[in-house]
Order: sequence, then structure tokens, then C-alpha cells
Amino acid sequence: MHAITIPEPGGPEALVWAEVPDPVPGEGEVLVEVAASAVNRADLLQRQGFYDPPPGASPYPGLECSGRIAALGPGVSGWAVGDEVCGLLAGGGYAEKVAVPVGQLLPVPEGVDLVTAAALPEVTCTVWSNVFMIAHLRPGETLLVHGGSSGIGTMAIQLAKAVGAKVAVTAGGKEKLQRCAELGADILIDYREQDFVEEVRAATDGAGADVILDIIGAKYLDRNVKALAVNGRLAIIGMQGGIKAELNIATLLNKRGAITATSLRGRPVHEKAAIVAAVREHVWPLIGGGHVRPVVDRTVPMSEAAGAHRVLEESTHTGKVVLTR
Amino acid sequence: MHAITIPEPGGPEALVWAEVPDPVPGEGEVLVEVAASAVNRADLLQRQGFYDPPPGASPYPGLECSGRIAALGPGVSGWAVGDEVCGLLAGGGYAEKVAVPVGQLLPVPEGVDLVTAAALPEVTCTVWSNVFMIAHLRPGETLLVHGGSSGIGTMAIQLAKAVGAKVAVTAGGKEKLQRCAELGADILIDYREQDFVEEVRAATDGAGADVILDIIGAKYLDRNVKALAVNGRLAIIGMQGGIKAELNIATLLNKRGAITATSLRGRPVHEKAAIVAAVREHVWPLIGGGHVRPVVDRTVPMSEAAGAHRVLEESTHTGKVVLTR
Repeated sequence: MHAITIPEPGGPEALVWAEVPDPVPGEGEVLVEVAASAVNRADLLQRQGFYDPPPGASPYPGLECSGRIAALGPGVSGWAVGDEVCGLLAGGGYAEKVAVPVGQLLPVPEGVDLVTAAALPEVTCTVWSNVFMIAHLRPGETLLVHGGSSGIGTMAIQLAKAVGAKVAVTAGGKEKLQRCAELGADILIDYREQDFVEEVRAATDGAGADVILDIIGAKYLDRNVKALAVNGRLAIIGMQGGIKAELNIATLLNKRGAITATSLRGRPVHEKAAIVAAVREHVWPLIGGGHVRPVVDRTVPMSEAAGAHRVLEESTHTGKVVLTR
Repeated sequence: MHAITIPEPGGPEALVWAEVPDPVPGEGEVLVEVAASAVNRADLLQRQGFYDPPPGASPYPGLECSGRIAALGPGVSGWAVGDEVCGLLAGGGYAEKVAVPVGQLLPVPEGVDLVTAAALPEVTCTVWSNVFMIAHLRPGETLLVHGGSSGIGTMAIQLAKAVGAKVAVTAGGKEKLQRCAELGADILIDYREQDFVEEVRAATDGAGADVILDIIGAKYLDRNVKALAVNGRLAIIGMQGGIKAELNIATLLNKRGAITATSLRGRPVHEKAAIVAAVREHVWPLIGGGHVRPVVDRTVPMSEAAGAHRVLEESTHTGKVVLTR
């Protein structure tokens, strides 16, 4: 088969479409004939040599895919060759075939085409596990989403609105904020011109955000803690703004606040399976019912993944960039 | 009545036993004729002028007491004049009488005398709410307790052992560690001579602590995050080592860790009542059954509270210092 390989870490041009051996599905895995994958920030880090795949994972980038099941590994039941699926991967999505543990497979939701389904696993699993399973966002509470127009952001807005929460977003510029508003965001904050701590307080009678979903890390840590409401929960899922920052423990303690930091990729298979099962139970019906929809900025041929990486680096997109075969 | 007043913040001598007006129990409160109170670190901060009572609370120090109900306020049922009780307070325990919301009252547990019961509310509510309600310590997991010989520490060791967890403690010197061992601690770390990150890893096959109960704050933040296991939870309840420190978010993220910081005193009455109810349900039977016992270092007459504060400042005690009428 062909896959995007990274002979030497570097810029987007480091991604090389090359002939590689086919993967072989192991115990409890299926082989998927890939229809599409999608780009995640982690792929950019992997390309630059900063984020090696976990032990045992495919060496090729790609944390999600859609496609058809081409073969079943030993001990697999409940799925059949030919099934249209999408799946959460530890790597290897940028390829013609990939082996996927069955616990990380999802059916293609009703009303979503096979290619678009590749845009769903990472954002739904990341948002559901962090905002709902870890931070327990409740109806009537306020969620602050940084990067509201990103793939994660566009899904977080819709899921939070679907459960009856109020949603504040930060994004850069009016156009991106307008897209967030169309998806249901209530409080629009242009981080280039406004202070999100002040804006969130002003919009919540001084209370602050009950949950914050953060992709920035260090650069926002102090302000995120300040923006939390009493009993607030800060869920960090990215470190685009650095890894080390001063934490004011007194501010956190006065709010009885919580800070969590997680990633999906490094989790063991059984934890991923628990998240995927929860997403299938809670999120899939919302997508099937048309209440929540995948937001795809564009599709790019997988062999031209370099161009797709450039789109993410320029941050001019809204939602997901999908890679097609 | 008499109470310990703080005419001017300062050293232990700032505590003055003086005549003050009796408190009047409000709606949903009872008046308790105090038998004993106990000293908490927060009292020392309040004496120094660094920790004002929350709005509406008694101006006198004292976050817990035991005694007999002397009068019922409006709307109180389920309790009677003469009942022997202990209670969690927002302040006012260093006094002959104190008004207590009924949700913060507990019966004196079986097998515990009335004076000793004053040593229970703060430590049981703090440990249960943090280690179990927030950090969800499970059987077979490892709890690291800093200050293992403190009032909080001695209760945390016993409760964690009672639910089947493994317990590591830090304390200063062999004598204090010996007391921790007698209470059931499995891993003894002298913080004056040993690195707790290394010791906890060595004792857990490199895994680290699943839950850390921390009273130090800034000074230990980085090491606490390093000492956490994957999916570990750091519960900060004190800042004896300062309030600001650098957090390495990448270390936390790689462990999918959580940091919480809480205090009991500032919580609204309904949250305190929920904690007290959980303590009555889960902890009181363990005390009544003799599996968990209050650890009292000494009792001091309340009018000599200054001396009791000096004991805490010198940190030569093990367990609680109780103030008697």
C-alpha cells in the first residue's frame, strides 16, 4: 500500500507519499481500507519530530480515519467485511490501509457521508471525554472554548449547546467568530482585541466559566484560572502556547477549582474503548438527528498532505481539514 | 459568654480570652454549649490577619467544636436540647457558645468522649471530601500524604487504609514517621533526608502515587506532579510552602493528571452539609467500629489558646491539639 511517511522530520515537505508494507490486523483488530483521514495538530508535531507515536503504534501520521472493513483479525465479532466505519487511531491514518482495535471503531453516523465521517472521531472523543466525562459540564453552566473555530472548537460549541449549556468562544477575527455564532456560540471574544477574562466575567454576572476547554496551555494558564467560576474546571488538551507557566494556587483554591491535562493518543486501548463507547451512546444520536454536524473546511488528496498541514499552520481554516484517497 | 478574640493581629499573644455577646442561633441553626474546640492551621493565619472569616461567620477563631445543644433556632428538627454533638464551623469555636447550621452537626461517635470529638469534624470532612469525594481514591491505589503526622495526616492514613489503599507519608524525623507507621502507613519518607518523588516511585514499581493529599502548595507543586501516577490526582488543601509556582503542563498532560485546590471554610452551607452527610455515612461507622480513631496530641485550656498555637508553630505535635473549656 501507500502511506505518508516522514523520512526526516521537518516542514510540510517532510511528508512523503511512499510504498510501504500493508499492516496486518492483530488480535481484536480489523483492517480498514481507508477512504479518508483528517489532520490534527498532533500530526504537525509528529512531522516536526516532537511527538513520536506511542510504542506499538503505526509510524505513519493520522489519528483518525473512515473507510470500509477489508479483513477481520483474530477474535473479532460484531463487525463484518464491507462495513462502513470510522475510527480513532494511535497513528497510521494517512495511508491506504490501517489496523484498528475494534473498541475504537464507530459506525458511520446516519446522514454523514463516508469521507466526512473521517472528521469525527478525534473531535467527538476529545470533546466528550474532556468536557463531559472529566469536567462534567451540566445544563445551564457556561463553557469557554479557546479556538472556537478549530475542529475541536466547532464540535465543542455544538455539543455544549445540545446539552443546554451557555458557550463562550475565543477566536481570531470577526469571520471566525461569525462561524462560531452560526454553530450556536453565545459569547464571542476576539482574542486579538479583547481580554477573555473580562469578557467572560461580564457575560456571566461576574461568575466566570464553569468549564474551560483549552488548547493553549502555558500562555493562558494564569488567565484561565482567573476566568474560572467557583467550582470551575479547566481542561487542558493542547499546549500551543507553551508548556511551563506560573500557577497561582491561592486563586485556584479560592475557587475550589480543578485543572486537568489529557491527551487521547497515549491512553491504553481499554480507556479509548470506554470513550468511544460513550461517544457512540451520547454523541452519535445527536449527529444522526442532525443536531450536531461535522464541520469540514476542505478536503485535500492524501498524497498532498503537505498542503493540508500548511493550512493548519496558517490557521485560516474553520473546522477540520480532511485527507481523501 | 467568653471567647478568644483577636483585638490586633499578631503572634500567639494576640489571642485574648474576653467577654463577648452570646451568639443567637438563626434559622436552621442550633446553639451549642461548647465542651471543646481544636486548633487548625487556618486559625494561625486568621490570628496573623491573613485569613478573614467569610461574610456572616463568627469573628472568633475555631473551625470545629464539640458540646451539648443548648437551644434550637427556628425551623430546626431532628435535634434536641442536651444532645451531645460535634460540628464543622465557619468560625467561633474558641468560645463558650457557638451557633451551628444543623447540616454541619454530627452526633458524637460511639466510643469517643465528648472532648475528643472536637478533634474530628475538620479532619474527617477535609480528608473525606478531598481524598474520596474529589480524588476518588480506590482500593489498591496508592495515596501519598504530606505531613503524615498532622491532624489531617493521621486521619488520612487511617481512612485510606480502611478502604484498602496503600499509604505513603512524608514527615520530619523518625519519631513522627514511627507514629504514622503505627496508624498503618506503608511507605515512610523523611522529607529532611529523602526525595519523596524517588521514594514513592521506588515503592510503587515506578508508577507513582494515584492520589496526593498536599498541604504544602507551591514548594511541592513540581515534585508532586512528578510523583503522580498516570491518571493521578493531586489534591491541594494548604499552602504552607507558598502560593505561586511553575507548573509543567506537559508533565501533567503526559500523566493525564488532575490538580484540585479546595478549602472547606468558604464553601456554602449546602456544600458543607453534603460533605458532613457523607462523613456521617462513611466515616462515622469506621470510628464507631474502632477501625479509625481520633489522634489527639494534647488538650490545652481554651483560655490558653496562645500556647496551643505555639505548639502548631513549632510542629512538634502528632495529630490534633484540642482546646477545652
